[in-house]
Amino acid sequence: MSIKRWGAGSAISRAVKHEGIVYLSGMTAEDRSAGMAEQTRQVLARIDKQLAESGTDKTRLLSATIYLSDMSQKDEMNEVWKGWIDPAHPPARATVGADLGSPETLVEIMVIAAK
Amino acid sequence: MSIKRWGAGSAISRAVKHEGIVYLSGMTAEDRSAGMAEQTRQVLARIDKQLAESGTDKTRLLSATIYLSDMSQKDEMNEVWKGWIDPAHPPARATVGADLGSPETLVEIMVIAAK
Amino acid sequence: MSIKRWGAGSAISRAVKHEGIVYLSGMTAEDRSAGMAEQTRQVLARIDKQLAESGTDKTRLLSATIYLSDMSQKDEMNEVWKGWIDPAHPPARATVGADLGSPETLVEIMVIAAK
Repeated sequence: MSIKRWGAGSAISRAVKHEGIVYLSGMTAEDRSAGMAEQTRQVLARIDKQLAESGTDKTRLLSATIYLSDMSQKDEMNEVWKGWIDPAHPPARATVGADLGSPETLVEIMVIAAK
Repeated sequence: MSIKRWGAGSAISRAVKHEGIVYLSGMTAEDRSAGMAEQTRQVLARIDKQLAESGTDKTRLLSATIYLSDMSQKDEMNEVWKGWIDPAHPPARATVGADLGSPETLVEIMVIAAK
Repeated sequence: MSIKRWGAGSAISRAVKHEGIVYLSGMTAEDRSAGMAEQTRQVLARIDKQLAESGTDKTRLLSATIYLSDMSQKDEMNEVWKGWIDPAHPPARATVGADLGSPETLVEIMVIAAK
């Protein structure tokens, strides 16, 4: 079975598709001076863009893992998430706190979607 | 290919099935005053229940990610896990420490199973 | 659909295959006195070995989750990763900091590959 990759660099691919499933890399915001809500919006916009490039969209999400550098800000992330998600098609999800490498990186989201 | 969801709320689905694979959300215990062993039992009971609802069971587990708020309590979790797992059919697994959002939440488990 | 397992113990399987997808357990280094670069090499050697046992290889990686006990050492891990990965076939990936249970365990990597 063939595997298709997008944004393949020296270490990772931005997305990989195999047998109708698209695996995205963990996405972070470009503007790390922004707060949690705005970083979440930027992450979700990048996910939207990559899902479109891979021939699918957020109504086909299967699973999401959300890493937050500060779990006390989960509500701010969640409010933006709820506004973004298709209300009839939310994915399975886990949200946990983790060190994201720089104190300015507040949220990283990794999703799996069906094509 | 059709996608089926269980427990779809405003942010997440409790489980999502696609092409014979069931993705469960990260499950936590209802009674957060309980210790690690009891919280693990409660999490695994919820997983059993959701797997049954989704037409499968723990003998068909493929992968599990276990998040613990305190890795020094891994043995207590693991003892309950070993008593629960079907000994002929354990999943691939990773267990790591992570902030689960409240100090009382000791364990969160996210699994993928085949139907 | 049948499920095949490798290294099935009382708690986990080292790898599980279902419908052409191989799920590996989180792998850590055997020599925990080693530094980040050497631990990463050992982890990737174990992944190579298990992928071979499961009938696939690193050119078929779909997704990787990398947990580091100290994100300030991400560059050391990444350098070894880049030397290992097939440059035409990198997986989707997320790398986050997490407690790996002992201060000597520096890196744990969990991958999904296509057969």
